[in-house]
Amino acid sequence: MRRRNRYSVAEYIAGIVANDRQILSQAITLVESALPEDQQLAEELVEGVLPFTGKSLRVGVSGVPGVGKSTFIDRFGQMLVNDGYRVAVLTVDPSSEESKGSILGDKTRMENLSTSPNAFIRPSPSSGILGGVSAKTRETSHLCEAAGYNVILIETVGVGQSETVVKGMVDFFLLLALAGAGDELQGIKKGIMEMADLIVINKDDGENRKAVEKAKGELKEALHFFPKKENGWTTEVFSCSSMLGERLGSIWNKIKDFEEEMKSNGYFENNRSLQRVHWMKEQISMLLEMGFYTDKKITEELNQMKSRVQFGKKSALSAARQLVAKYLAMNST
Amino acid sequence: MRRRNRYSVAEYIAGIVANDRQILSQAITLVESALPEDQQLAEELVEGVLPFTGKSLRVGVSGVPGVGKSTFIDRFGQMLVNDGYRVAVLTVDPSSEESKGSILGDKTRMENLSTSPNAFIRPSPSSGILGGVSAKTRETSHLCEAAGYNVILIETVGVGQSETVVKGMVDFFLLLALAGAGDELQGIKKGIMEMADLIVINKDDGENRKAVEKAKGELKEALHFFPKKENGWTTEVFSCSSMLGERLGSIWNKIKDFEEEMKSNGYFENNRSLQRVHWMKEQISMLLEMGFYTDKKITEELNQMKSRVQFGKKSALSAARQLVAKYLAMNST
Repeated sequence: MRRRNRYSVAEYIAGIVANDRQILSQAITLVESALPEDQQLAEELVEGVLPFTGKSLRVGVSGVPGVGKSTFIDRFGQMLVNDGYRVAVLTVDPSSEESKGSILGDKTRMENLSTSPNAFIRPSPSSGILGGVSAKTRETSHLCEAAGYNVILIETVGVGQSETVVKGMVDFFLLLALAGAGDELQGIKKGIMEMADLIVINKDDGENRKAVEKAKGELKEALHFFPKKENGWTTEVFSCSSMLGERLGSIWNKIKDFEEEMKSNGYFENNRSLQRVHWMKEQISMLLEMGFYTDKKITEELNQMKSRVQFGKKSALSAARQLVAKYLAMNST
Repeated sequence: MRRRNRYSVAEYIAGIVANDRQILSQAITLVESALPEDQQLAEELVEGVLPFTGKSLRVGVSGVPGVGKSTFIDRFGQMLVNDGYRVAVLTVDPSSEESKGSILGDKTRMENLSTSPNAFIRPSPSSGILGGVSAKTRETSHLCEAAGYNVILIETVGVGQSETVVKGMVDFFLLLALAGAGDELQGIKKGIMEMADLIVINKDDGENRKAVEKAKGELKEALHFFPKKENGWTTEVFSCSSMLGERLGSIWNKIKDFEEEMKSNGYFENNRSLQRVHWMKEQISMLLEMGFYTDKKITEELNQMKSRVQFGKKSALSAARQLVAKYLAMNST
């Protein structure tokens, strides 16, 4: 375990803004902490760095397992670093609740990018009862922005809820796809496709090329059936080879086009406004639960109720109702 | 929109227990309703059917998109129906938040099973702010059990959070996998593999056979590295062809073995006990949020705060803290 809380909020902020990687890492660990005594410091810290945030481009990178997200981010990130950007990579891994991380550890993934002084890679651990994966990732991305990283890549593993969460904290949502026997349409859920600002078919190399061309056509076809987006943006289908490092530049150009267009039509700021409101709501849920579960009287009663529910002597529904009613009644001024 | 609330709780319960499919459907719609005025009736309804529940076997079926879950469930369910079981299929679809369901609609999936009078198929819509996907699916499964369905198959789409949720409401967790170029280990997250009580490689047919054999070996190898499960169960790797209907019987036999073994060593009831406690906690979160968001004074203040947060005049964090503090202070007896 790393030691934490060695610094004051002001020291943390100064260290982060000066891009002290060690302090940044420790600040993230603090923000991710589930300990009640860390919460206030964490909140002050995030609140404190807010003035230094907002200047980066936040890009979500999603796709089913096996699509090659790590290799893509490794090469794409390297390209950006070579172009003079400072890149932070955060991974949202919802499946790591039982055991942390993937079979192939995070160290072996993105091995090139991880050695760059202008890149910062940080996997987000999943959360317990208090707070969601999302809250921590959002806060972590703010800390990285304050440290001067101007491209934040948020990788999400899986197809589903985590995408919705990530969509709620990025400016641009990139969906990686694979060519394969008819899986183009079955494999990608309509909801995820709708979220995408760009679909990129990866592994456009070697024997795969023909299948990629076909998949591209099918995906384009499928996109026709989607309603036009409110922000006026048209989702296109690109392809690339992360392995060969081919056509990664065109993807970045497209993202920059998006940024320019959205900034001029107002949807860039509009999206961020909505995301701030969303963040507030997440925080509300987190605080409501935290208040409940850290209340001593409630904890006692919860433990008694728990065993009754466990042995089937009381229903989960009525136990919950009683406890919440009691909690609310107690909290008078 | 279906008409709801035509029945009293007693009428709903009587109809469900008599396996009136129409009443069952309407009851599920009621339980899924986000309207505050429906909540109490829904809770009474679920509470009321509890004595009629608990006798079924609850099986989670998971796997990445394209693995063939629908075909598997269609054929597997048919086999069970032919064996005299009554099968309910519930799908948890976390990706349908933006648009409901998959590109290939639910009607075209499971076309055989859906025509059987002894099968009941119901997709769960994703939820809004109030309540989670999980709460509704759990409650829906209880309604189905009360209606006499004795095998509940809960299908989960995606790799991640939804699996954790489903794991928390089933007795047995079946993971479908595919054979493919090295994707066996990359594609299946360690956390998901740990959850699995049985891994079944689907599409063990035709030219795929050899690759399946290889994948089986690799998955078995990978399972060796996992710690022994507390309940003493050893996860095995099977294969089947849903398309050809091959080796589905051995899967069901394995599930029945599991049930027998867990019932004799006490872990079956132990698991359900823990799940009831988990359910209580979900319900607590839901009630805390519902109380907050249905409070008129809070709603007014929230709306004002919202626009300040939106325009960056107040941070999401401090707005949330203020609102929650106010809410708790207000709720005195």
